Amino acid sequence: MLDSSIPTKQITSNAVGTRNLDLGRGRKAFQWLDYLSPDEAQLDALQQKYDLHPLAMDDVRTYDERAKVLDFGAYLFITIHSLTRQAQDIIDHELEVFLGRAFLITIHDEPMPEIDRAVKRFQADPHRQDLGPDYFLYLIADEITNALFPMLDQIDDEIDATEEETLARATPKTQARIFKLKHTLIQMRRSVAPMRDVMNALAGTRYSIVDAKTALYYRDLYDRLSRIYELIETARDLLGNALETYLSVQSNRLNQVMKALTIISVIFLPLSFIVGWGGMNFVRFMPLDNELLYVGLNLSLLLIPVVMLIFFKNRDWF
Amino acid sequence: MLDSSIPTKQITSNAVGTRNLDLGRGRKAFQWLDYLSPDEAQLDALQQKYDLHPLAMDDVRTYDERAKVLDFGAYLFITIHSLTRQAQDIIDHELEVFLGRAFLITIHDEPMPEIDRAVKRFQADPHRQDLGPDYFLYLIADEITNALFPMLDQIDDEIDATEEETLARATPKTQARIFKLKHTLIQMRRSVAPMRDVMNALAGTRYSIVDAKTALYYRDLYDRLSRIYELIETARDLLGNALETYLSVQSNRLNQVMKALTIISVIFLPLSFIVGWGGMNFVRFMPLDNELLYVGLNLSLLLIPVVMLIFFKNRDWF
Amino acid sequence: MLDSSIPTKQITSNAVGTRNLDLGRGRKAFQWLDYLSPDEAQLDALQQKYDLHPLAMDDVRTYDERAKVLDFGAYLFITIHSLTRQAQDIIDHELEVFLGRAFLITIHDEPMPEIDRAVKRFQADPHRQDLGPDYFLYLIADEITNALFPMLDQIDDEIDATEEETLARATPKTQARIFKLKHTLIQMRRSVAPMRDVMNALAGTRYSIVDAKTALYYRDLYDRLSRIYELIETARDLLGNALETYLSVQSNRLNQVMKALTIISVIFLPLSFIVGWGGMNFVRFMPLDNELLYVGLNLSLLLIPVVMLIFFKNRDWF
Amino acid sequence: MLDSSIPTKQITSNAVGTRNLDLGRGRKAFQWLDYLSPDEAQLDALQQKYDLHPLAMDDVRTYDERAKVLDFGAYLFITIHSLTRQAQDIIDHELEVFLGRAFLITIHDEPMPEIDRAVKRFQADPHRQDLGPDYFLYLIADEITNALFPMLDQIDDEIDATEEETLARATPKTQARIFKLKHTLIQMRRSVAPMRDVMNALAGTRYSIVDAKTALYYRDLYDRLSRIYELIETARDLLGNALETYLSVQSNRLNQVMKALTIISVIFLPLSFIVGWGGMNFVRFMPLDNELLYVGLNLSLLLIPVVMLIFFKNRDWF
Amino acid sequence: MLDSSIPTKQITSNAVGTRNLDLGRGRKAFQWLDYLSPDEAQLDALQQKYDLHPLAMDDVRTYDERAKVLDFGAYLFITIHSLTRQAQDIIDHELEVFLGRAFLITIHDEPMPEIDRAVKRFQADPHRQDLGPDYFLYLIADEITNALFPMLDQIDDEIDATEEETLARATPKTQARIFKLKHTLIQMRRSVAPMRDVMNALAGTRYSIVDAKTALYYRDLYDRLSRIYELIETARDLLGNALETYLSVQSNRLNQVMKALTIISVIFLPLSFIVGWGGMNFVRFMPLDNELLYVGLNLSLLLIPVVMLIFFKNRDWF
Repeated sequence: MLDSSIPTKQITSNAVGTRNLDLGRGRKAFQWLDYLSPDEAQLDALQQKYDLHPLAMDDVRTYDERAKVLDFGAYLFITIHSLTRQAQDIIDHELEVFLGRAFLITIHDEPMPEIDRAVKRFQADPHRQDLGPDYFLYLIADEITNALFPMLDQIDDEIDATEEETLARATPKTQARIFKLKHTLIQMRRSVAPMRDVMNALAGTRYSIVDAKTALYYRDLYDRLSRIYELIETARDLLGNALETYLSVQSNRLNQVMKALTIISVIFLPLSFIVGWGGMNFVRFMPLDNELLYVGLNLSLLLIPVVMLIFFKNRDWF
Repeated sequence: MLDSSIPTKQITSNAVGTRNLDLGRGRKAFQWLDYLSPDEAQLDALQQKYDLHPLAMDDVRTYDERAKVLDFGAYLFITIHSLTRQAQDIIDHELEVFLGRAFLITIHDEPMPEIDRAVKRFQADPHRQDLGPDYFLYLIADEITNALFPMLDQIDDEIDATEEETLARATPKTQARIFKLKHTLIQMRRSVAPMRDVMNALAGTRYSIVDAKTALYYRDLYDRLSRIYELIETARDLLGNALETYLSVQSNRLNQVMKALTIISVIFLPLSFIVGWGGMNFVRFMPLDNELLYVGLNLSLLLIPVVMLIFFKNRDWF
Repeated sequence: MLDSSIPTKQITSNAVGTRNLDLGRGRKAFQWLDYLSPDEAQLDALQQKYDLHPLAMDDVRTYDERAKVLDFGAYLFITIHSLTRQAQDIIDHELEVFLGRAFLITIHDEPMPEIDRAVKRFQADPHRQDLGPDYFLYLIADEITNALFPMLDQIDDEIDATEEETLARATPKTQARIFKLKHTLIQMRRSVAPMRDVMNALAGTRYSIVDAKTALYYRDLYDRLSRIYELIETARDLLGNALETYLSVQSNRLNQVMKALTIISVIFLPLSFIVGWGGMNFVRFMPLDNELLYVGLNLSLLLIPVVMLIFFKNRDWF
Repeated sequence: MLDSSIPTKQITSNAVGTRNLDLGRGRKAFQWLDYLSPDEAQLDALQQKYDLHPLAMDDVRTYDERAKVLDFGAYLFITIHSLTRQAQDIIDHELEVFLGRAFLITIHDEPMPEIDRAVKRFQADPHRQDLGPDYFLYLIADEITNALFPMLDQIDDEIDATEEETLARATPKTQARIFKLKHTLIQMRRSVAPMRDVMNALAGTRYSIVDAKTALYYRDLYDRLSRIYELIETARDLLGNALETYLSVQSNRLNQVMKALTIISVIFLPLSFIVGWGGMNFVRFMPLDNELLYVGLNLSLLLIPVVMLIFFKNRDWF
Repeated sequence: MLDSSIPTKQITSNAVGTRNLDLGRGRKAFQWLDYLSPDEAQLDALQQKYDLHPLAMDDVRTYDERAKVLDFGAYLFITIHSLTRQAQDIIDHELEVFLGRAFLITIHDEPMPEIDRAVKRFQADPHRQDLGPDYFLYLIADEITNALFPMLDQIDDEIDATEEETLARATPKTQARIFKLKHTLIQMRRSVAPMRDVMNALAGTRYSIVDAKTALYYRDLYDRLSRIYELIETARDLLGNALETYLSVQSNRLNQVMKALTIISVIFLPLSFIVGWGGMNFVRFMPLDNELLYVGLNLSLLLIPVVMLIFFKNRDWF
């Protein structure tokens, strides 16, 4: 554990994708180890050096854990997720963290630009140096959280566009888009909800490793993740509303067409019957020489559709 | 901190849209600073003067925060929202507040008539002068909350109108209106729920800055916001009910029309068949000289529709 | 404050609709003031006499408050609602109460028969005299709660009638009735839920003004209001179930009719085609002299419908 | 209070349907009074003898109370319900209980075989004699709870049968059955939920009358009632799932039929048109002597349906 | 109870399917008894030897208990379930456990490979020997929980396949598959929810038999079961989304077909009318010698469909 008041920044990259940095200063100086897809040997060495619990190491080795905090006394074991959106799918990258009083170990399988941004912010501001590894972890979580807002803004824009389409010029593609947006939001909510719970736990007084000063930052993060969660829920409600509307606008339009087509059919059926009557071969009895009948019959062929249309219109049938 | 028993009201507007007022009297006198769209320089000066936490200042600079309370010991940092309705959209304006024992700082990006009304109420009543900045903030929150009731009343009237239309003379426009009202309520709920939580927090004994006497006022505000939240939920249920009814009334009407049209078709098809038979050219075998047949056939053309209609009526088909 | 063991019942009606009664006896004697639509002067006098908090007086002056309890130390300010049903609408009348140790003030805008019944019950039983104003308020709340059961029974009967209709002889009116019943239940739930919370608060040990003995009565009231709330929820579920069933029974019936009509159409179309063929004027080539053909053709006109019906029946098409 | 180590079982039936039994032994001996539809005189005598609270007696006199526990210090007043299923309706019988340290009073309006079974179990096992009236009440509640399982099993079998029918050979009766099962489950849930809460209350340490040893039994009962509640919810979900499936299987089948019928119509319409053309009387211009035309025309009458069917099949229209 | 530091592993199988093993070492040594479908005699002997509570033994004898923990002081009685999936049905096997300080009794009716794997893991690692029976039980629960993930992965793959089908080439089988997957998930959730609650209870400080060290393992298990629960809920939401989409894609496709078929009908009806007119026998008045009329009439037979199709297309009817 270093005691130098000015932190010595020395990167000792002992493997591809591994960083080893001394950060912070004074009583709050700490060592930061960052592993990108570590191999078994590295994990074993790490476990030995910091006396890490086998339970936590098991979790590091397996994937698809839920965001969570486990308290091992000398350190906290924390799992959080960073989300990226590829087309309509939400991909979550797992970040495993050991947060001790004088060390911070971060393990992940994909490069995380959020971590690099957090390092820069931490090193840029001398006041931040006095806050320990718990604050540095906050910066990482802050970057991860902030990355969610543009994602949500984009989804919001897509929902707005979809809502407008719904009432104006919806096509079956509109519906496929709603379906995919809902899929995206369901996935997103699954990752955000436990993240929020983790921040709430870190914001409380439960863990002595997290400083009361820093807890305030986690509280702010918790508020922002709650906001995100509510935005997701609101977005789902809006999409549900849009879908309902789309379906009934569609069904309405179809019904109008079918009604119009049926009315055309209905108009021609009596006409066909009349001329069919005129085509019968009972020539002996039929008044085929009656010109009045002939003219009247032809007139009725013109009048019947008019009468029917007026009748239908009056009954509000189209 | 002033100690004069009669507050000296002196407006020192050092910038466009900025107010600086000494309010209250006695032990409860306090300074009120109101910033409308402050620039960076103003915010920096403010932060320096009152030693405000950078975390809170970050929140002031970003928009779209959730209504919340953060306790920084010497002061509370509070975000609340005032809502206005433009057509069917709920616009929320953010108000950021620093509530200290002897100061109140309010920061907002749009002019807020609620604040002006609160100032007038505070200054009008001498008894209110003895209650500090926490009470003054209550007055602002009270004005913001009261502005929600006419909004809800208007929405309620629109729902009533929609419900009546639904059963009587619904058109596709009715449905678009339901859709937009639901959209409005979803947005409104998103803003009201965290506001209510903020008032509940301020009504408790958690924050020493809020006086026990004033907490009672926040409790009342919490009750009113709970009422509003319930009214929103009830309104949504009523709209859902109206929508369901609209859809099935519509579908019912359409079905009546389609059934009527289909019955007309069905009646003319056998008639067309009969006269078609009479038009066949098997003149050698067909009893075309049989007057009885001719008359019977013509009679059947009159009777068949009658029989069919009676049959359909009996089976309750229309 | 009276100390006489036998309460002196003297009504001093100083205004229309105002009652002033000394009730109870011994240590529990109290003054009851009942105001029906009091004017400003009365309210001001009242506030002065009992030193009532301006916040509570504001709530008395405004309407449409949520059922609630506010503790002002020397007294509780309580808002409860009595419900009546007019046709399908639930009307709620607000009752505002100040409950002190030796006084009970009730303020309402409509005559409330529940209060009159409560007075009678209180005065009829000498044992009840020993219980103070908190018990008298319980009697009023008890009467208000009991008035809900016949209302719910009536709604229950209507639901039962609706459910039976749904499966047997549903008409579009059935659906309008379901719609209105759901509307009624949504309104009712909105009023009952906060009432229940008020009784729960009064049943606890939070408020010293409510005696432990009387709290038991409020607990019983809370249980009854919980029961009512559950009955409302159950009623809504049953209505939802009935509506779903109604809609699909209706759609089923319509589908049967449409299928039958379509089958009639389908049967006549080939027949029309055959006689149409017989009507062609290619007299030179057509075997119009072939009696066998003529007979066969006529037979086919009889057989084709039979064959088609058997085919449709076999495929379970009707 | 008896002190004999061997309980003296002596039934003193002083009225029809009333039992009076000395049960248990040693310090845990108690008197059990069982009333079947007691009259006013009996209730008054009971109230006097055991000094029962008028509030509880009021509840005994009224029906349709919610399952609940009220603590009157010297005794608990408990309401529980036994459920029986008649066809599709759940009938609940109310059992009112006064549980004291040395007495147990049970009041009900219908004969309850569960109570008789509980008496037998209690008397059969000498070890049970050492557990007091709270344990005896547990036995009654246990019998009531156990009676729910066969009911649920039966409902489960009916749901299984319904689910199978849904995918295979659903008729409108299937849907009526789903409707009635949902009705049954809604009623059942309404009664089970407060029962579970009562058992949870008795399993806790809140009531000193319930022994810590016996509380364990109530805890077990609570677990079983929670299980029942979850089974009811699962059953409702499965029914909802089955209903959705039924509706769309039905709609699918109908659509297949309507499509097939429509295709038949569509095939005959062009044929009718062709033979109609052949029937026109423009004999001077029509090539009625052209045998090729006649043969071609007749061939087309055979080919057109084939071509149309191939076209429809290719576009996947049936 | 053994005190040897190296556990003596000696299997004493006194009956088919019964194991008796001494496990662990030092202060944490314990005896493990595993019963596969024990008979009454075995259960009685067991009850006598360990002085087990009759309530727990009753639960062992009955089936279909909910996952739960009952604290009997000297030992915990725990019920958990292992799930297997057969086709679309979730079968749950009950495992009843008595967890004492120096013994662990497991009773089940089916062979459980999870237990065998847990024994192997326990015996393989010497460090694990120092953790007592509570840790051994954790290993069993861990194996049971881990077996859920491949099941969920498989379900997830099936949902993905279903979602893709839904938008591309859905058939009625797609819907039957959705129905069955929902059925599976409803069953699974019913078993997982109480399992999660059991792990939460064991992870707390409520039960002194579970070591604080081991509680951490149960906490991890609780997190994993929460994850599973959320995955189930997410899967249900995705399926609901897929079903909605499937239904409306289907309805859309059907509507396209019906519209096309209707348009064909509508086009031929006026044509049939025209040729029907030409077939009338009013030869005296009809201009049958007018070649222009004949040609025009035939041309109209060609033009009318074209005009109609253009008209329909313009109005966006297909």
